Amino acid sequence: MKPLFDTVTIIGIGLIGASLALAVKKHKLARHIICADADKKHVAAAKRLKLVDAATTDSREAVKKADLVILAVPVGVCGKVAREIAKHLKPGAIVTDVGSVKSTVMRDVAPHLPAHVDFVPGHPIAGTEHSGPKAGFAELFIDRWCILTPTPGTSKAAIRKVTALWKGVGAKVDCMDVTHHDRVLAMTSHLPHLVAFTAVATAAELEGDAGREVLKYSAGGFRDLTRNAASDPTMWRDIFLANSDLLLEIAGRFEKGMKTLQKSIRDGDGEAIFNSLTRTRAIRRGMIKKA
Amino acid sequence: MKPLFDTVTIIGIGLIGASLALAVKKHKLARHIICADADKKHVAAAKRLKLVDAATTDSREAVKKADLVILAVPVGVCGKVAREIAKHLKPGAIVTDVGSVKSTVMRDVAPHLPAHVDFVPGHPIAGTEHSGPKAGFAELFIDRWCILTPTPGTSKAAIRKVTALWKGVGAKVDCMDVTHHDRVLAMTSHLPHLVAFTAVATAAELEGDAGREVLKYSAGGFRDLTRNAASDPTMWRDIFLANSDLLLEIAGRFEKGMKTLQKSIRDGDGEAIFNSLTRTRAIRRGMIKKA
Repeated sequence: MKPLFDTVTIIGIGLIGASLALAVKKHKLARHIICADADKKHVAAAKRLKLVDAATTDSREAVKKADLVILAVPVGVCGKVAREIAKHLKPGAIVTDVGSVKSTVMRDVAPHLPAHVDFVPGHPIAGTEHSGPKAGFAELFIDRWCILTPTPGTSKAAIRKVTALWKGVGAKVDCMDVTHHDRVLAMTSHLPHLVAFTAVATAAELEGDAGREVLKYSAGGFRDLTRNAASDPTMWRDIFLANSDLLLEIAGRFEKGMKTLQKSIRDGDGEAIFNSLTRTRAIRRGMIKKA
Repeated sequence: MKPLFDTVTIIGIGLIGASLALAVKKHKLARHIICADADKKHVAAAKRLKLVDAATTDSREAVKKADLVILAVPVGVCGKVAREIAKHLKPGAIVTDVGSVKSTVMRDVAPHLPAHVDFVPGHPIAGTEHSGPKAGFAELFIDRWCILTPTPGTSKAAIRKVTALWKGVGAKVDCMDVTHHDRVLAMTSHLPHLVAFTAVATAAELEGDAGREVLKYSAGGFRDLTRNAASDPTMWRDIFLANSDLLLEIAGRFEKGMKTLQKSIRDGDGEAIFNSLTRTRAIRRGMIKKA
């Protein structure tokens, strides 16, 4: 069977980029896989781990022959990368990305791209608490959702090819409006990370032995709550800033909920607490079944 | 080898009680295992699943021959159970419990017990998102911490026997001061549950499709954050109320941390966010290694 693409170029060979490279190779979705990364260590790792056919620090050179370019860098640098590579993209090339905030990526990337190129913004909801090229594995996207946020003007053929790529690496694909995506992700991903980072910081500030003991006894709930706090700081700084409006709105709702439950606790209102916990358990159990 | 106890009676045959029954039987730590539970369905399940040698709704009857009585009921009813069984305990019996808040259990249980009985408060930091007798399994306590909070007056021999029981089912045992326990657990377990319940409620209140979609796309962080929200509402209502002072203090610190990080996001202060996230990641990674 003919591969989907002749040449795929991945810009940024961290956890997601490396996993994509391995999955594209494994499923023979491209004849050639190239990567570029501004970090020489990542380029060296990509070569050593044989993640790609060629690796370079020069993103311009890397995209010249690409039929598909995947931006797998932190959302804060997508615009800069788009500016760098724009003139070097070949006619008919497709550009996509993997960023967790889609409005800013569309704002920062689309204006730089030439008219002879199609841009299909994408976001695979997949990851682990590890980062960097060594953390990549071909199975990362299996049974995970990948959300595309094309505009009405996006080429249908390009959407079909990007969809085929994600299905090819095992993912399920949904399309949705960009603002809707950013709002749903503020709740499902960005708030959970904000909370996780904050909970770890709170524990670290406890005086005396208590901080150390939090780590020791973390099986009581803290470990699950804070798994997200091991994620990459650059990536998450960029996400928090890029989705600040929607994240702060959702965080405000969360804080209101915290206040309500704390008031019930302070008032000793067992019935209100029980009713609230019963409601949320039913919802959370529904989620376990879906997961 | 002689078993540690002739008869062990477990009051409350939920996840923890059932797991203990299975583990005590598996490791031959008692000749006879009896359970009592106020819920007839739990008693029937205990018999059907062969968790114990005898099961009854009558806690008084159940403790008559017990050398060790384990209170495995929600912390809010420990006092009531202690009052019920007090007169029926045999001289030399040891009473222990598994509650997640130790100050209230000591306050509610100790005064009812006769002088010829030893009370060793305990807390295994183990659990799953499931509850009830069917959720029990003998391996639940393996490599988990169990914290005992004896007072200076507690019999050393009784502490040794309860320690041997927990080590016998695979746990590691620590002793600590009761207030210190409750403070550490407020951070490691009670706040994570408060946050998890609140996050699920926040998601459920999103208007339109967004609430449903939170469940669908929960792999982005929400699922880990909220795993704790599937826990038993009665158990957690009791814990929140029993440890309200320390929990509200820790929750206040957490909310302050949320405000600080949100302010950095609102101000677009990337450097402050990056520094904060880098610090917390290092701490969280230390925890992964320990876990």
